[in-house]
Amino acid sequence: MSSPAPELLPEGGFTRIRCELSYDGSYFSGWNLQPDRRTVQSVVEDLLSRLMAIPVNTMVAGRTDAGVHATGQVFHFDIAQVDRDRWNLTSLMQIANRLLPDEVRLNSLDDAPHGFHARYSALRRNYRYRFADGFKVIPPLARADVAPWQQNLNIDLMNAAVVPLIGTHDFAAFCRKREGATSIRTLEKFEWSRDSDGFAQALVSADAFCHAMVRSLVGATSIVGAGHAEIGWLAELLSGGDRVGRSLSAPARGLTLIGVDYPIGAGLLERAQVLTRTGVRSLPSE
Amino acid sequence: MSSPAPELLPEGGFTRIRCELSYDGSYFSGWNLQPDRRTVQSVVEDLLSRLMAIPVNTMVAGRTDAGVHATGQVFHFDIAQVDRDRWNLTSLMQIANRLLPDEVRLNSLDDAPHGFHARYSALRRNYRYRFADGFKVIPPLARADVAPWQQNLNIDLMNAAVVPLIGTHDFAAFCRKREGATSIRTLEKFEWSRDSDGFAQALVSADAFCHAMVRSLVGATSIVGAGHAEIGWLAELLSGGDRVGRSLSAPARGLTLIGVDYPIGAGLLERAQVLTRTGVRSLPSE
Repeated sequence: MSSPAPELLPEGGFTRIRCELSYDGSYFSGWNLQPDRRTVQSVVEDLLSRLMAIPVNTMVAGRTDAGVHATGQVFHFDIAQVDRDRWNLTSLMQIANRLLPDEVRLNSLDDAPHGFHARYSALRRNYRYRFADGFKVIPPLARADVAPWQQNLNIDLMNAAVVPLIGTHDFAAFCRKREGATSIRTLEKFEWSRDSDGFAQALVSADAFCHAMVRSLVGATSIVGAGHAEIGWLAELLSGGDRVGRSLSAPARGLTLIGVDYPIGAGLLERAQVLTRTGVRSLPSE
Repeated sequence: MSSPAPELLPEGGFTRIRCELSYDGSYFSGWNLQPDRRTVQSVVEDLLSRLMAIPVNTMVAGRTDAGVHATGQVFHFDIAQVDRDRWNLTSLMQIANRLLPDEVRLNSLDDAPHGFHARYSALRRNYRYRFADGFKVIPPLARADVAPWQQNLNIDLMNAAVVPLIGTHDFAAFCRKREGATSIRTLEKFEWSRDSDGFAQALVSADAFCHAMVRSLVGATSIVGAGHAEIGWLAELLSGGDRVGRSLSAPARGLTLIGVDYPIGAGLLERAQVLTRTGVRSLPSE
């Protein structure tokens, strides 16, 4: 068995912390650090750095765009064992949540199991998208994570239309192009239903998503669901690969990263080694 | 049968519109018009007045305080029949909802049945209060209408403690004093439970509430629920009448007016006549 790439595990003397968190993306310019922008990463890193008086650099599972929410985002950071020993992680989480703004909260903070890497160990990312379609009134207290859509959306039609997308394909038609990055992904799930509020809800899972892919998939599907395109149109977009799907991107407001799945035990490191060795998804993903 | 007080029915040539609405109270200084403040009433009246090019003066069922939310608030306004005839009410509601800010939405807009008066015909007001107790993390996307409470709240203890409050009493201990106004109310329901998110939730109903009464009742009960006062304390406060309860007012953030109940048919006008003739609740109520 070959040794893992050095960056997959904490450096000597360091230990890794795994954190799950939620945020209302309306108040952030996305996850990723950006100059002069308020991002989730900047707020969380600033707070943890000040609190523990050490530099905190996070590695995240899903780099969400501006306006996209999360209920189950995951990141890790490495900390010297001597600093780790100063803290009870339950207390640390409670203090952090008291100091963070209301729009972001840590759900859990734990010692990461051996081989855990927030990004490279992940098996799949799970997203939810919600439309208030057909002039449905969006309740003010539930307005943050649902997007309006004027026409009625036909759930059965949309579920039929997305069938050809399931599986491993080159999703270039639905991705913002990045030089040198593959747009081959495995779409494991894309299911529409009515949620308990009557909104049209999509649950979308893949090993990973390229940039803006979930919103492009959802936007294109809703064109079919509203009756403006034939049921075979999504398959045509996929095989055409000409990025027309990208221009149909649904509003960020309706999108939420609801969870990231990981293997257990030795699978954590194995998964990360496979991904990094094969060069799959070596550039930022949504 | 005597004729109704003149203000209970629309003037000659006028007809009455009934509206149900929802709002996120975080963004408003309460319902009621106030100079230089953004209130729900000012936003709704301004919009409807501009849209229909007539003066719109609303009469509301429950004057909610700053920060208090609604999912089922009710108001009415009177409009000349000639102006009413210009509008399809379904279209009017859709246009209004497109122009209103996201934090307020009309749920319905209909011709009021004969004898309907948003305030005086109401049989009861129904409120919900939610606490995230015991260091529970408040999900950012659900943060608007739940208030934090550090200790664990004992639901059974609270349900036992509120029993003496049910029924018709002078609730002066839990009301902000207003000269000349009675604080006698009939508390019909005050029930605590765990909602689907695990929050401590109170459902509170009364014929009407005096100012700040729901939050005082909830705040005092939570003191018992956290183990800081004996189970008989609420009954003592009620009979003492010395307004200590008022200082225990729970945060507005956790409170939502979820609905207003009305009689049907002839009961609408009868109810309004009884209330106005007996002078019950002649001053603003929460």
